[in-house]
Amino acid sequence: MATLFKDVWIIDGSRNLAERVHLLVSKGRIAEIKSYTENPPSADKIISGRGKMAVIPGFVNAHTHAAMTLLRGLGEEAPLMEWLQNKIWPVEDKLTPDYIYWGTLSAILEMLSTGTTCFADMYFEMDRVAEAVLSAGMRAALCRGITKGEPGKLERSLENNLDIAKKYHGREGLLTVQLGPHAPYTVPVEFMKVIAQAAKDNDLGVHFHYLETEGEKNSLPENYLEQADLLDVPHLTLAHSVYLDPEIKIDFENITLVHCPNSNLKLGSGIMPLNSWLERDVSVALGTDGASSNNKLDMWDEMRVTALIHKGVNKNPVIIPALDVLRMATYEGAKAFGFSQKGMISEGWVADLVLVDLDKPNYIGVNAENLATYLVYAGSSADVAGTMVNGKWLYLHGDYPTLDREEIINKAVEAREAITK
Amino acid sequence: MATLFKDVWIIDGSRNLAERVHLLVSKGRIAEIKSYTENPPSADKIISGRGKMAVIPGFVNAHTHAAMTLLRGLGEEAPLMEWLQNKIWPVEDKLTPDYIYWGTLSAILEMLSTGTTCFADMYFEMDRVAEAVLSAGMRAALCRGITKGEPGKLERSLENNLDIAKKYHGREGLLTVQLGPHAPYTVPVEFMKVIAQAAKDNDLGVHFHYLETEGEKNSLPENYLEQADLLDVPHLTLAHSVYLDPEIKIDFENITLVHCPNSNLKLGSGIMPLNSWLERDVSVALGTDGASSNNKLDMWDEMRVTALIHKGVNKNPVIIPALDVLRMATYEGAKAFGFSQKGMISEGWVADLVLVDLDKPNYIGVNAENLATYLVYAGSSADVAGTMVNGKWLYLHGDYPTLDREEIINKAVEAREAITK
Repeated sequence: MATLFKDVWIIDGSRNLAERVHLLVSKGRIAEIKSYTENPPSADKIISGRGKMAVIPGFVNAHTHAAMTLLRGLGEEAPLMEWLQNKIWPVEDKLTPDYIYWGTLSAILEMLSTGTTCFADMYFEMDRVAEAVLSAGMRAALCRGITKGEPGKLERSLENNLDIAKKYHGREGLLTVQLGPHAPYTVPVEFMKVIAQAAKDNDLGVHFHYLETEGEKNSLPENYLEQADLLDVPHLTLAHSVYLDPEIKIDFENITLVHCPNSNLKLGSGIMPLNSWLERDVSVALGTDGASSNNKLDMWDEMRVTALIHKGVNKNPVIIPALDVLRMATYEGAKAFGFSQKGMISEGWVADLVLVDLDKPNYIGVNAENLATYLVYAGSSADVAGTMVNGKWLYLHGDYPTLDREEIINKAVEAREAITK
Repeated sequence: MATLFKDVWIIDGSRNLAERVHLLVSKGRIAEIKSYTENPPSADKIISGRGKMAVIPGFVNAHTHAAMTLLRGLGEEAPLMEWLQNKIWPVEDKLTPDYIYWGTLSAILEMLSTGTTCFADMYFEMDRVAEAVLSAGMRAALCRGITKGEPGKLERSLENNLDIAKKYHGREGLLTVQLGPHAPYTVPVEFMKVIAQAAKDNDLGVHFHYLETEGEKNSLPENYLEQADLLDVPHLTLAHSVYLDPEIKIDFENITLVHCPNSNLKLGSGIMPLNSWLERDVSVALGTDGASSNNKLDMWDEMRVTALIHKGVNKNPVIIPALDVLRMATYEGAKAFGFSQKGMISEGWVADLVLVDLDKPNYIGVNAENLATYLVYAGSSADVAGTMVNGKWLYLHGDYPTLDREEIINKAVEAREAITK
């Protein structure tokens, strides 16, 4: 089935100017893009934009723990360790595979309605997470959170992560799998080396929390990544990296940092020196982190805060341009997790798209030169008319064609009640 | 006509717990609140909440320049003075009374759809602004921006501001008027004294930009407010106050600070030491500033950024509780501009209300203890089902019963094209 976006604006993180075009989607890909002044290609289904809608790449939420939607709002406004030890961990212990399934689906409802087409998830019971993602028809990068605990737990978790990779890496073109050691403070460096070797042996990326807090920086050697043999894994995704020194002398060719500004603010962790990383041409993606420390899964909000906060903290209104932020929220995450030809609006690239309604007061004055800045500074998820993954609508005008919204919310409410009782 | 909100949650900045109630609105006021377990009062119109909707006080945007919606997105990502001198001022010169009328109405569309029921506007052609506000049925606090210029301009502007006060102060219970000297750097201190005297003579508040940037702090004496005779005007509203020293030894009884976090970030001005002001029990309201330096007029966004940014900058997750932020976004602004019995959900208070849809994935787990934190950390304008001012719906399920949305957008687009040509 082919879908035609007739007379819409397109923009992505590689374009200085938006273009007004007809865009044809077929077989899950962007099949054709031509000027809106030409005759539109034919299609089974037509979305008429009348020059008042935009099509942008779907967002890639590059670091989250989707099922933590079930833990949202627990222990607000408490110091970090009190929050984790008294509010989060005891409740997390009660999560069953079923609860994780419904919690993930409720995260997917939220992400689809806000324009996210792909998310990088670190959690456990990843079979059920994969099931949730595939049932929605969404895209995801999965890793099993590996943490120390009772004897043998590290080994069993790694084995489980490798099993997940065997079953799901590349599945339906929608899933990829990475290895997910939780963090240097929950995985001993000797075992981090084992994980690094497994990543190389199985050609998998590694995704973990790195230098999220100042305390972590003080307790780790500066050459930790080298020490843990992590520098030559196929790809390394470093979530947070608030305290990574932008002067560090390593090669960032295969490394992506994930900036999670709202979570870092909320937990009082601090603010990543993003501008230095962009100046150094290091790849930085954006993530929400889990809903329990954000408390949203809304990439518009991450984009806007990213574009604003560094200007304020550095007292410099010209840094962190909107176009860079748009690229961080789309292409950089897709690249990090091995989704090729995703995150730009180009012929042949996957049709993971967001339809944005520009016929609203907050878009008065939008044009080819300023569409990116309007989206980042004046846009919000309230402007999302539809979200398409692989050429299929997963969200359109409030409806979820592939999901039973009411059942998911009811089941998630039940799960929440059960774990907080 | 009486409207019944049947079985809804209520919360405001004075309540530790949300309550599940029936709430009756009549004659522009909250007429009755009783438990949802009792029989609901009768009414002409019933909104059925089924325990899945909340009613909160309408937001008060305590500092903006509404018609600057027409200048949104001009000169993005430029240094402040380049932005003002090359992009904003030349275009502002082309604004006609009609353009200001339509620009204000387009701001009103945006504010109503995001739950704002009252805004404090500093601009010019305030007759047309008043006309726009009254035609919508909204509430506003108006002041004429007074700035130096050609000889006699200061005096004429003050005279105009006083005329506006005579015509509109208290009008229909919807409008109040303040005097609006733009800032210490655009109004000489001798004339600031004239304005202070006029405020006392006419029992009016004074609203101006104060210590927005570091440069301003360096060029003003610490006792400027005293020097300019401003400390004993009936009420003083100090917008921004990023660089006001929280140790300053003055009485804040009749002073409100307006925190505009997103504008201060975007222009690279810096971050107000909000926590120190709250510890000192100083009244702080929230504002968006104009759409050209935000670039939204969405108080949800100001609430969320306020609740998050100070935690991050101070590396302290327990400061700036959500309930304080909710009060800042509602009651504190109403109080500052002389709207009594506005900003709380109490019998007898004005029915300026926002209906919030909680039947969404981002509210799973919400209850009486955590509703305020859910709204501030996980809520957004996408959750606004309706906005009521003085007991009348001005926005409901996407429609504007008192306004012609399409005409306003078309006229605003025309105005934008004319001024940027």
